[in-house]
Amino acid sequence: MTESDLPVVQLTPGRWGDPEVSVEVPAPALAALHHLGVRRPESGPVDPADRPGLTPQQVAVLAEVVGAEHVATDLTARWAHTRGYSTPDLLRHRAGDTSDMPDAVAFPADHDEVLALLAVCAEHDLAVVPYSGGTSVVGGLAASRRFVTVDLRRLDQLLEVDDISRTATLQAGVRGPAAEALLAKHGYTLGHFPQSYEGASIGGYAAARSSGQSSAGYGRFDQMVVGLTLATPRGTVELGRAPMSAAGPDLRQLVLGSEGAFGIITSVVVRIRPRPEERHFEGWRFDTFEAGLTAVRRLAQDGPLPTVLRLSDEAETAVNHPDGAGGVLAIVGFDGPYKPATADVLTAAGGQNLGAESGEAWRVGRYKAPYLRDPLLDEGALVETLETAGFWSRIPALKAAVTEALVKALSEQGTPPLVLCHVSHVYETGASLYFTVICAQNAEPIDQWRHAKLAANAAIAEAGGTISHHHGVGTDHREAYAAEIGPLAAEALRAVKGVLDPEGVLNPGILLTSS
Amino acid sequence: MTESDLPVVQLTPGRWGDPEVSVEVPAPALAALHHLGVRRPESGPVDPADRPGLTPQQVAVLAEVVGAEHVATDLTARWAHTRGYSTPDLLRHRAGDTSDMPDAVAFPADHDEVLALLAVCAEHDLAVVPYSGGTSVVGGLAASRRFVTVDLRRLDQLLEVDDISRTATLQAGVRGPAAEALLAKHGYTLGHFPQSYEGASIGGYAAARSSGQSSAGYGRFDQMVVGLTLATPRGTVELGRAPMSAAGPDLRQLVLGSEGAFGIITSVVVRIRPRPEERHFEGWRFDTFEAGLTAVRRLAQDGPLPTVLRLSDEAETAVNHPDGAGGVLAIVGFDGPYKPATADVLTAAGGQNLGAESGEAWRVGRYKAPYLRDPLLDEGALVETLETAGFWSRIPALKAAVTEALVKALSEQGTPPLVLCHVSHVYETGASLYFTVICAQNAEPIDQWRHAKLAANAAIAEAGGTISHHHGVGTDHREAYAAEIGPLAAEALRAVKGVLDPEGVLNPGILLTSS
Repeated sequence: MTESDLPVVQLTPGRWGDPEVSVEVPAPALAALHHLGVRRPESGPVDPADRPGLTPQQVAVLAEVVGAEHVATDLTARWAHTRGYSTPDLLRHRAGDTSDMPDAVAFPADHDEVLALLAVCAEHDLAVVPYSGGTSVVGGLAASRRFVTVDLRRLDQLLEVDDISRTATLQAGVRGPAAEALLAKHGYTLGHFPQSYEGASIGGYAAARSSGQSSAGYGRFDQMVVGLTLATPRGTVELGRAPMSAAGPDLRQLVLGSEGAFGIITSVVVRIRPRPEERHFEGWRFDTFEAGLTAVRRLAQDGPLPTVLRLSDEAETAVNHPDGAGGVLAIVGFDGPYKPATADVLTAAGGQNLGAESGEAWRVGRYKAPYLRDPLLDEGALVETLETAGFWSRIPALKAAVTEALVKALSEQGTPPLVLCHVSHVYETGASLYFTVICAQNAEPIDQWRHAKLAANAAIAEAGGTISHHHGVGTDHREAYAAEIGPLAAEALRAVKGVLDPEGVLNPGILLTSS
Repeated sequence: MTESDLPVVQLTPGRWGDPEVSVEVPAPALAALHHLGVRRPESGPVDPADRPGLTPQQVAVLAEVVGAEHVATDLTARWAHTRGYSTPDLLRHRAGDTSDMPDAVAFPADHDEVLALLAVCAEHDLAVVPYSGGTSVVGGLAASRRFVTVDLRRLDQLLEVDDISRTATLQAGVRGPAAEALLAKHGYTLGHFPQSYEGASIGGYAAARSSGQSSAGYGRFDQMVVGLTLATPRGTVELGRAPMSAAGPDLRQLVLGSEGAFGIITSVVVRIRPRPEERHFEGWRFDTFEAGLTAVRRLAQDGPLPTVLRLSDEAETAVNHPDGAGGVLAIVGFDGPYKPATADVLTAAGGQNLGAESGEAWRVGRYKAPYLRDPLLDEGALVETLETAGFWSRIPALKAAVTEALVKALSEQGTPPLVLCHVSHVYETGASLYFTVICAQNAEPIDQWRHAKLAANAAIAEAGGTISHHHGVGTDHREAYAAEIGPLAAEALRAVKGVLDPEGVLNPGILLTSS
């Protein structure tokens, strides 16, 4: 079973993933959670109450563009497009909170309909939130005023494959497994496998600068994109006439990561590669995270890099492998032939090859971790993840600072957490750090987490990391992002938005602060 | 002798390169040129006449920032900062044309002085042209109004080396050989060797998205930059807290390639690598350019890539190697161990290994080709280069279209040209094409070339290439660039400039059209 055989999952809000898949918290984990003070809450989820949406006149304006059958205004459809999958999003969903619910959902058929929708929305002062997979975990679907969601699921085509250039043109609404299946028919893979793979889409990957689990081999999504088409309220922007160019700034990199604030990406031209004929996954053990970090850095700087390279810290290794051999676990995966030279580097750096079993165990479970969060929330645990990246020399201090900030902020609230961490993306000059936080929910878990999250953001800023390596900005990181790039750069971005979206209807409140 | 042993060349306007190096046109080449109708012109270069520069009050404003000894207003200094090294630049220089001469040259000591200079220039409505190596070949030093040149040669320090992250912080005024020499003391190389290496600078590499001859192994300069500091009339912008980030658009890629229109890059943080212990260069012969193109594409797409990979077409091979074996010549270079697997790919694709001699001949002469242009101009030849890039599937048609446009435009003027071409930069999805054009000068060689250049630009646009792969936009490609990115993207860039340079003093007329 490879990624192209996986089904697309139509995500439903409030609980991650395929509704057919049921995950239970293992009994030993439950016992450990009780030690942290986790108690099952007495009250369950609350159903949302409907509230008025668009006026009939406003609905008619949308229907004129996409057809009445492609505009939804009922509570079910609107609630199914409410927020993404951050823990605060899930908690608000459980509370039946409709404050971020769209007023209507439009389903355009193609680029021209997206363009026309944006034009009429600008004309009628209707805010627009682009929606593909809906997998944001940073509040990327929560506009600061009432809005129309533009769901891109009908833009689901592989438009072109160029075998000579090894590029493919994919529409924005193609979901991860669908992209792989479409490309597999031509013998290719995109090689982009983020944890949100089952539900996330090409447009979302591009808009949020996604990075997948095979980034060591295939690069980030923003490195795969060689061309893109952007629909804005003022017209179309098409970029990318060559792999690289010295004709001015690389404007593709201005649109990638713009999170719908400058326009809606309707298609991208991506670099594709032949499907590998073989794949290998292995586990490796190191005595300490420090030793493992040196090993993965050696591979990132001097090679040969595998396709997948991940390193858990002691806490994450202990939680995920309570019966393991201690130390820390690295996962090493190869698309294509096994590279003995990679193993040599790991061995020389003190690594012990645990063989294919632990590697395969990771591969099989690679998209399943997020499924566990919902039953954990059911049990009364607060579980969330956050991530950053930095240059290698700052990584140890960055990890320590974020961990300390989270422990302090949650312990102060009477809910000492477990903080787990791993490196999942490496570069010659640095790496990402991904944190998982688990503690007991208190009576106000959204506030409880906000307090911890702000402490982590401050620690990241002070330790010299970036506020996000691959989750994006959304609303959750807006202020931290503004601080990271500084007031002049933020003003420049607002000026770009002012040109492309002069009425300010596109994703208001996402990515950019208002001043 | 490696790149770090080469001296920095203080370029002087009007003739390329080290004044100590004298290059003569070989007699057989001269005979061939006579066949093209090339005749030595009767008149020689004209000395420039001085014209009034800044007022004493304006000079005092600059002197207050950098000190009177660091402001030059004499004709010699100003003439030495007039234009770059395109053939039209050289022809205007020979004509003693002072129309693009700066009114003064200021030499700031550091970032803070650059910042202060920009502030006072904005306040006093003095246009500013940043200057480091001065090696533009696209009219990048010819502002549309009278101006002060800010020469960054005093910003010549290696500020920091981070051995763990493998990064170095270099000031903008460090020239290519100086950067290599500074890094060599720490055991590192930047690996950036453009043909302008002897004179070009770090700041220019960044501002113009330079790409060096070792790009297959080390990447483009914009891929080496992980952080940068920009001085603008409104203050400082600092970017790059991690190798990669999902925190919004990659704004580094908005500054790289901005050619001084948004601010002056005063330092960059670049990825560095250990100096290779060995290097190998080889020549390879293919029967046709088409066969060679398939071979280099295979390496770019499936590897293993060498460090240097170039492929001349039949015409270029014949001109450069008149006694050779015909066909086309590829140059393959390795920093570090030789890769037999690369040779296997080339052999399988029909390549014939010509051995180290022709590879070494290329290596030794790699920076010497531009030296030949001046004596050729002396002899009455018109010689110029231009370049583009595109996706692999378009490369053959792009090459044919540009060649045809050049031949037609120059033949129509009674001066049929030789057009030579090579691929010097490869990517998974495409490659660059570099053209050299030689014909007889007519009575108005600047107009003669403009006619040909516009025809080439139109051919590039129509065949789907980018207007520049590594030379940049300057003034020469301004209109073609605006057409390439379209009116909305161009307006967005003007809005960015409006924020960072509200008085419009930075490099007016470079990069962007006024509407």
